[in-house]
Amino acid sequence: MTQNTKFNAAILIIGNEILSGRTQDTNTSTIAQWLNSIGVKVNEVRVIPDIENTIIETVNHLRKVNNYVFTTGGIGPTHDDITAQSISKAFNLEYEIHKEAFKILESYYKVGEFNEGRQKMVWMPRNANLILNPTSGAPGFYIENVFCLPGVPSILKSMLGGLKNKIVGGDPILSHTISLKTVESEIANSLTNVQDNNKDVEIGSYPFFHAGKLGVSIVIRSEDQLKIDKCSSEVLEFVNLKKIEVVVR
Amino acid sequence: MTQNTKFNAAILIIGNEILSGRTQDTNTSTIAQWLNSIGVKVNEVRVIPDIENTIIETVNHLRKVNNYVFTTGGIGPTHDDITAQSISKAFNLEYEIHKEAFKILESYYKVGEFNEGRQKMVWMPRNANLILNPTSGAPGFYIENVFCLPGVPSILKSMLGGLKNKIVGGDPILSHTISLKTVESEIANSLTNVQDNNKDVEIGSYPFFHAGKLGVSIVIRSEDQLKIDKCSSEVLEFVNLKKIEVVVR
Repeated sequence: MTQNTKFNAAILIIGNEILSGRTQDTNTSTIAQWLNSIGVKVNEVRVIPDIENTIIETVNHLRKVNNYVFTTGGIGPTHDDITAQSISKAFNLEYEIHKEAFKILESYYKVGEFNEGRQKMVWMPRNANLILNPTSGAPGFYIENVFCLPGVPSILKSMLGGLKNKIVGGDPILSHTISLKTVESEIANSLTNVQDNNKDVEIGSYPFFHAGKLGVSIVIRSEDQLKIDKCSSEVLEFVNLKKIEVVVR
Repeated sequence: MTQNTKFNAAILIIGNEILSGRTQDTNTSTIAQWLNSIGVKVNEVRVIPDIENTIIETVNHLRKVNNYVFTTGGIGPTHDDITAQSISKAFNLEYEIHKEAFKILESYYKVGEFNEGRQKMVWMPRNANLILNPTSGAPGFYIENVFCLPGVPSILKSMLGGLKNKIVGGDPILSHTISLKTVESEIANSLTNVQDNNKDVEIGSYPFFHAGKLGVSIVIRSEDQLKIDKCSSEVLEFVNLKKIEVVVR
């Protein structure tokens, strides 16, 4: 991976359900693709359990070594939702009712429906900035460079758009994929040469087995389209020489 | 999460393709479910890029604070496969041809097919123990408590069975799910009471939106079936009182 990207982030998935294997995390991919599109590279992902001290320590480490931290999970109404109170402790801030969030949920629900459970969702670190939720009302929040989003994938996805102007990024990270009907070992040496010629471009090689097709996808990533094009030509050059078939996936 | 499980593990996903969001990690769920079935709890998952120093530092940290570490990815034949050499450095061991692995791949491939690219896959830390690969020949390996598996999900899955007698675990971690036609806020308080009455049982609450059904799954996890049954009854008690419908997912 090239290290010249100016803006980077860590993703912190909070939840026992991912660690037990019961639930498949899909939020990493959603957030990572969105960050790439606004020029922020993901350095690291961690999945941790719903344990307060673990959340506090991990957030306090990650926020120091990354431009941004995105957490998912643990901001709902139940006993296992402890992200907001843990983040308050991490920043040494009061955990209290957020007046704006209270107003939002009070008008979101019908009269009588804004019950005690739902009111838990307006407790946040003091002076938290809200992240609006067009899907189910309850906002996420951010403090400094730590952005706290819900765990439900469809809700999380709907909230990212509203964050765009809160994040300073660089040039979008572009990528080009060339899929080949071959095996990795046939192209390993040639691909190493291309990587050696283009040290500041990230070149990945990934075997695939999909819908009866077997092959290798070569993924070329950079912020510079010209560099991607140069690598592409070099790959296609050895592909032609070796008479390897390019496939559409 | 209860902390009384005797055996624990970390999973380390190595690969730029997960961090870029291009590829969805599914290995975490596969390994976690398998570990749970043999009584090992997953404490933590990390996803890191194909950078040697990052791999070395992360492995050296995780192997000290967990009974087991499982890595996935980076043991294939291409330039971006640097796990085996990084693990060698982490353990301060020579990175060299593993004779048994060489014999396995020599007889796996047809004459002339065991080319330079494929030969890279028999380079391992000195005295590595092999993890046999019934799907595509090339073995994984382990050193002390660090188990290195490939990234391709179907291959990884096929290799776990052979590891069972290498891992000392505890009682399998059992779970029971009760799915309800309700929303989390309706049951939050009652569920908190059940958790307070059963502090050594892990109770999670997860909203679902699936196939036109909307509801909440309550997941009860413990090594002790009697404790799960007790919690279950307490949940069903408030569910009946509140006249909430139990649904089959």
